[in-house]
Amino acid sequence: MENFDLHDYLKARKAMIDQALEHVLPLPEGPSDKVVEAMRYSLAAGGKRVRPILLMAACEAVGGSTSSVMPAACALECVHTYSLIHDDLPAMDNDDLRRGKPTCHKVFGEAVAILAGDGLLTFAFELLAHPDMKNALDPSTLLDVVYVFADAAGINGMVGGQTADIIFEGKTTDAQTLSFIHSKKTGALIRASVEMGAMLGNGRQEQVKNLKKYGTALGLAFQVVDDILDVVGDEQKIGKPVGSDEKNQKATYPALFGLEQARKKAVQLKDEALAALADFGPEAEPLRAIAAYVVERDR
Amino acid sequence: MENFDLHDYLKARKAMIDQALEHVLPLPEGPSDKVVEAMRYSLAAGGKRVRPILLMAACEAVGGSTSSVMPAACALECVHTYSLIHDDLPAMDNDDLRRGKPTCHKVFGEAVAILAGDGLLTFAFELLAHPDMKNALDPSTLLDVVYVFADAAGINGMVGGQTADIIFEGKTTDAQTLSFIHSKKTGALIRASVEMGAMLGNGRQEQVKNLKKYGTALGLAFQVVDDILDVVGDEQKIGKPVGSDEKNQKATYPALFGLEQARKKAVQLKDEALAALADFGPEAEPLRAIAAYVVERDR
Repeated sequence: MENFDLHDYLKARKAMIDQALEHVLPLPEGPSDKVVEAMRYSLAAGGKRVRPILLMAACEAVGGSTSSVMPAACALECVHTYSLIHDDLPAMDNDDLRRGKPTCHKVFGEAVAILAGDGLLTFAFELLAHPDMKNALDPSTLLDVVYVFADAAGINGMVGGQTADIIFEGKTTDAQTLSFIHSKKTGALIRASVEMGAMLGNGRQEQVKNLKKYGTALGLAFQVVDDILDVVGDEQKIGKPVGSDEKNQKATYPALFGLEQARKKAVQLKDEALAALADFGPEAEPLRAIAAYVVERDR
Repeated sequence: MENFDLHDYLKARKAMIDQALEHVLPLPEGPSDKVVEAMRYSLAAGGKRVRPILLMAACEAVGGSTSSVMPAACALECVHTYSLIHDDLPAMDNDDLRRGKPTCHKVFGEAVAILAGDGLLTFAFELLAHPDMKNALDPSTLLDVVYVFADAAGINGMVGGQTADIIFEGKTTDAQTLSFIHSKKTGALIRASVEMGAMLGNGRQEQVKNLKKYGTALGLAFQVVDDILDVVGDEQKIGKPVGSDEKNQKATYPALFGLEQARKKAVQLKDEALAALADFGPEAEPLRAIAAYVVERDR
């Protein structure tokens, strides 16, 4: 792992995942073709594929093989994409553009966009529980993975965080509520990506626990940096308008503590993430590099 | 099973399921309490609990015990309820009332209603994959059940059927498209309820196959009778305005083939359902009575 080049690594992994995602859904046909078209549209609309990459990297960090975990990696991207489709709806953030392209409801209409989100969320569980998965992975572990996944995506995780984000929009928010929103809205699924990878790679209990710690710190760091970029970022680079949090009176770290404190917090979280990897060898190098990248990125 | 009284049976089972549903979700608290409140509101809003009752009855038909399948029964009602919440949204059917009560988005707003649906769908998988489930049931079977469930709820089932229903609203529909919509929109989840019950009760392969046939016929019969009741039903009894299908130019059996043919079709489907139970003894009596009830009901 000397001369490890994160840029090349991320590029190669993203290409692998993009290709897998292209083939994961059936082709649109029959009377319900529109919903599959919409799901494919949003799934193909790009993104860094952070969650699938983390799942694969965590699997390798415990010595597991990534050959059989691609459907699980795709499941994470399906759930992430569904959350973006529903977040963009007029009743939620009402966004017309996502990564520079028209949002799902702009292209397919609101009804089909709601159903495309529902379809992607449901499809994620189809992928994880597909009979083929049992050929390579232990059914009991797979069932635990389904649970971790659902828990992180649902009311204890993403759905809970998104609800709080909407309820507290425009209201005064304290540090505790902000931490609730951040750790759940984005943090839970990122943490679950790492945890699921460690479980699917048959990591020992102690390893899974440490990687869960890593994922928790990383997930929070990711969101803090997102907030910072919304203030100081380059619109061209991040692919969406900056200043939207302030406009929508969203609770953010920079808004509550100022930019300097937010930056300190991000570095502190990176250090926490790295500390959780102390017992791992060079096979965790990608995870270490990702932690540094997440905090230093400008997009 | 002599003197089997379906009315008492359904009443007792519904009471059991209502009670379980009351305790299945956490209490609303913290910054995301609104979404849990909305989920609880819609879950408690009543309904016949057809799907959970079918799961339990199918489990018993193969000689299984229902003591450990209640979470799976609740999972079915969570998914059914999520589908109603999303179907009622302004972008979909735009309904203000459901079972005589204001719909979820009318009470909690559109954003929270979308999230409540997402939360219920996700929670269903949490229930099925909960670590406690593995104490009583085989993990490999549970994983297969998750797959059957997700497949029936997703693009191959409910989501696909709902999409087609929306796309073809107001358009001329042929028998093939109507059959696609019916078998998927309502039929798939009813079929899955029976199939999941048979699997969780450790039914033999042949038994599961026959119960799947029963569930497929029953699911279609259920929808055909729903369509008939929308034409000739008593508003007071069915708890929603009649004539809404015609108003919304929905594809239905009575619209395409006339009332008499639709009634014949329902009876034919009931006979198919009963024929699939030929190899079962008195332990399948509730399923037989349910098939008759579904076709003869007036609400």
